[in-house]
Amino acid sequence: MDNPGFRPSLLTDQYELTMVQAALASGAAQRRCVFEVFARRLPDGRRYGVVAGTGRLLEQLREFRFGDEELADLERRAVVDAPTLEWLAGYRFTGDITGYGEGECYLPGSPVMTVEGTFAEAVMLETFVLSVLNHDSAIAAAASRMTTAANGRPCLEMGLRRTHEEAGVAAARAAYVAGFAGSSVLAAGARYGIPTIGTAAHAFTLLHDSELEAFRAQVASLGVGTTLLVDTYDVTTGVEHAIEAAGTELGAVRLDSGDLLEQAQAVRIQLDKLGATQTRIVVTSDLDEFAIAALAAAPVDSYGVGTQLVTGSGAPTAGMVYKLVAREGADGTMVPVAKKSTAKASVGGRKWALRRRNAEGVADQELLGLGTRPEGAEYRRLQRVLVRGGEIVDTSTPADARALHELSRAELPVTARQLSRGEAAIPTVMTR
Amino acid sequence: MDNPGFRPSLLTDQYELTMVQAALASGAAQRRCVFEVFARRLPDGRRYGVVAGTGRLLEQLREFRFGDEELADLERRAVVDAPTLEWLAGYRFTGDITGYGEGECYLPGSPVMTVEGTFAEAVMLETFVLSVLNHDSAIAAAASRMTTAANGRPCLEMGLRRTHEEAGVAAARAAYVAGFAGSSVLAAGARYGIPTIGTAAHAFTLLHDSELEAFRAQVASLGVGTTLLVDTYDVTTGVEHAIEAAGTELGAVRLDSGDLLEQAQAVRIQLDKLGATQTRIVVTSDLDEFAIAALAAAPVDSYGVGTQLVTGSGAPTAGMVYKLVAREGADGTMVPVAKKSTAKASVGGRKWALRRRNAEGVADQELLGLGTRPEGAEYRRLQRVLVRGGEIVDTSTPADARALHELSRAELPVTARQLSRGEAAIPTVMTR
Repeated sequence: MDNPGFRPSLLTDQYELTMVQAALASGAAQRRCVFEVFARRLPDGRRYGVVAGTGRLLEQLREFRFGDEELADLERRAVVDAPTLEWLAGYRFTGDITGYGEGECYLPGSPVMTVEGTFAEAVMLETFVLSVLNHDSAIAAAASRMTTAANGRPCLEMGLRRTHEEAGVAAARAAYVAGFAGSSVLAAGARYGIPTIGTAAHAFTLLHDSELEAFRAQVASLGVGTTLLVDTYDVTTGVEHAIEAAGTELGAVRLDSGDLLEQAQAVRIQLDKLGATQTRIVVTSDLDEFAIAALAAAPVDSYGVGTQLVTGSGAPTAGMVYKLVAREGADGTMVPVAKKSTAKASVGGRKWALRRRNAEGVADQELLGLGTRPEGAEYRRLQRVLVRGGEIVDTSTPADARALHELSRAELPVTARQLSRGEAAIPTVMTR
Repeated sequence: MDNPGFRPSLLTDQYELTMVQAALASGAAQRRCVFEVFARRLPDGRRYGVVAGTGRLLEQLREFRFGDEELADLERRAVVDAPTLEWLAGYRFTGDITGYGEGECYLPGSPVMTVEGTFAEAVMLETFVLSVLNHDSAIAAAASRMTTAANGRPCLEMGLRRTHEEAGVAAARAAYVAGFAGSSVLAAGARYGIPTIGTAAHAFTLLHDSELEAFRAQVASLGVGTTLLVDTYDVTTGVEHAIEAAGTELGAVRLDSGDLLEQAQAVRIQLDKLGATQTRIVVTSDLDEFAIAALAAAPVDSYGVGTQLVTGSGAPTAGMVYKLVAREGADGTMVPVAKKSTAKASVGGRKWALRRRNAEGVADQELLGLGTRPEGAEYRRLQRVLVRGGEIVDTSTPADARALHELSRAELPVTARQLSRGEAAIPTVMTR
């Protein structure tokens, strides 16, 4: 089996462990530290990002331990020395994590997660935290643009085959957070309770001696409410066969190729003429947010999205980083720290984050600060406690995250929902 | 835990199971079928693709079964009917799989994998096979361009934090197949024996009261052979501190920001002046194949590649499809089948595949056919038996795949190794 019982702790870059080794030896391992997760910029003209993966991260945090199997491997391959192995054997994260709620929109510099603990215990989580958040947030950001473009018509996630098999499950979950109605992925239903969908592929039609025979077999087994794929041979004949096999109560027909706008219009007219006025039209051919928007005027009832969803529609990673912003000094007080090198400089110190809304309730500023946090109805707090003293206290579900995303997106100015390339929807303002 | 003991069988699109249900009811489920996996085109001006993931796929195929947990979930969510659940309970793949060896280069239309069995048993594998091959092949194709650009200098994979946590492990493996020297990912070492590397991040320097103190701590624990990251504050001072802490036997310095070409030249001169003539220079800032090529004249000893590797350097999925090409007819003979719809038409029938070489041993044609396969020294057979009667017979390791890739890439014409956008390196010719 591919994953032979390893815990998530080895889903980690080696340098986290070698840093722990050197810091244990130098004595610095026990210094209190604050790490912040943020994106320096949004990808490629995007207006906002979407935090996703938090729930998946917290679930796996419980298992982020080193058991006999992991320790034996690290010892065999001489990755770290004996004192470090001993420390790893007792490792569990005992610090605090705060962060933006899953589903929340974020802007450049937003401290989407803050991890506090000793250096050793907090640095251990760096790679894993970034993997989960960078992947899931990239998918959710693309999905959010797609559900915006679909303007209320259901979007269905079907991209598992175009990404790593486990990434596909996480993508289905992230898409759901950003408003997708369901997914083709069985494991997304099993693990996260996400509605799953799917009926048949071209192979099912080709398997039978005729299209009509295939449709009859499908309807006999799956009922007239099923979706028949009508473009294996000729779409017009396919629609005729579909209604012949299922009657006018047929649930839906699916189009997976060709000019979808033109075809959807022709198929709608044909279905209506045949009396199948309630039969829906599902389209599924290499859609992205732009193709979805272009079909706004077409009589399409839902969109199946695959490749472009699971690859983040041109932005497959969110590019978040995990940076040390404060650490305990020799005298026991916390010292803000930041890298000075060109282009990648960051601001030291632990930041609070508020979203300021104007009198109409529209967000106009992402306000970050180091000092006193202002109060007032115009400010919405963005950070919440996720883990306290190593105990997971946030138990938000994917449905909770979906609700938060809807609220958060609706609060952004209307420019946020434009698909064209542009600036971040609201400015990030750093107060000192 | 994120993956609560589910087998890979639920890493599948729902429609595979509903097709099985309808085909069991119609009686067509038992028809012999041949499915082929191929890419209709290469992404984005690429000259060749690289098959990767085969070994990972075969390992997991053994576990592609439905246990009590999966069956209970499918029953609870009413995904399929009772006869289908019963069939799934007894499912294991008993057919044959042939394919290109892992590491082999492929061209548009190359039948990289051929799955034969009953419709039901073979269609069940569609989504899973595509997930593994599409992801791993996309990474390997990008990695192959990077190792070509590096022209013998070691490339190191460091991208886990920029992709899904399990995808990152698979990416490390695929990069190794395509010639990378090692990876930062601990699980890639533990599972696949891939060499792992990594020493320290900026946080380690910031944790200590001074850079010099941090370097001394790292050298004390990890030895003078370690790699010191010298760009947290000022590179010139960083190099001074590095040699002060480690002496002239220091293993390497790492540069992670700024103009790498200019910096590498300055750092090389500085190291040589300090007497550290054997200290290597590692560069790691958002590299892709083009940036690597641009550093050919710089005194760089190895390249650490992250984001662009794990996202396929602009082509995050290989776009392979799994198509029914032949199936048993009502009279028991095999019938070639193919979809007719616009733009996505494919050629029916099971194909053999040969790579033709000219007198100099340079590949000049990807020859595919349905009839008699030509023999002769100019033809190299590309397909091998991977699974026979459900038993896995190919036991190639990642090291074997790496060797095959090196051979296969070297055999392609020199245009294949150009980074610029262009046509496929050799034409795919279909004979009837």
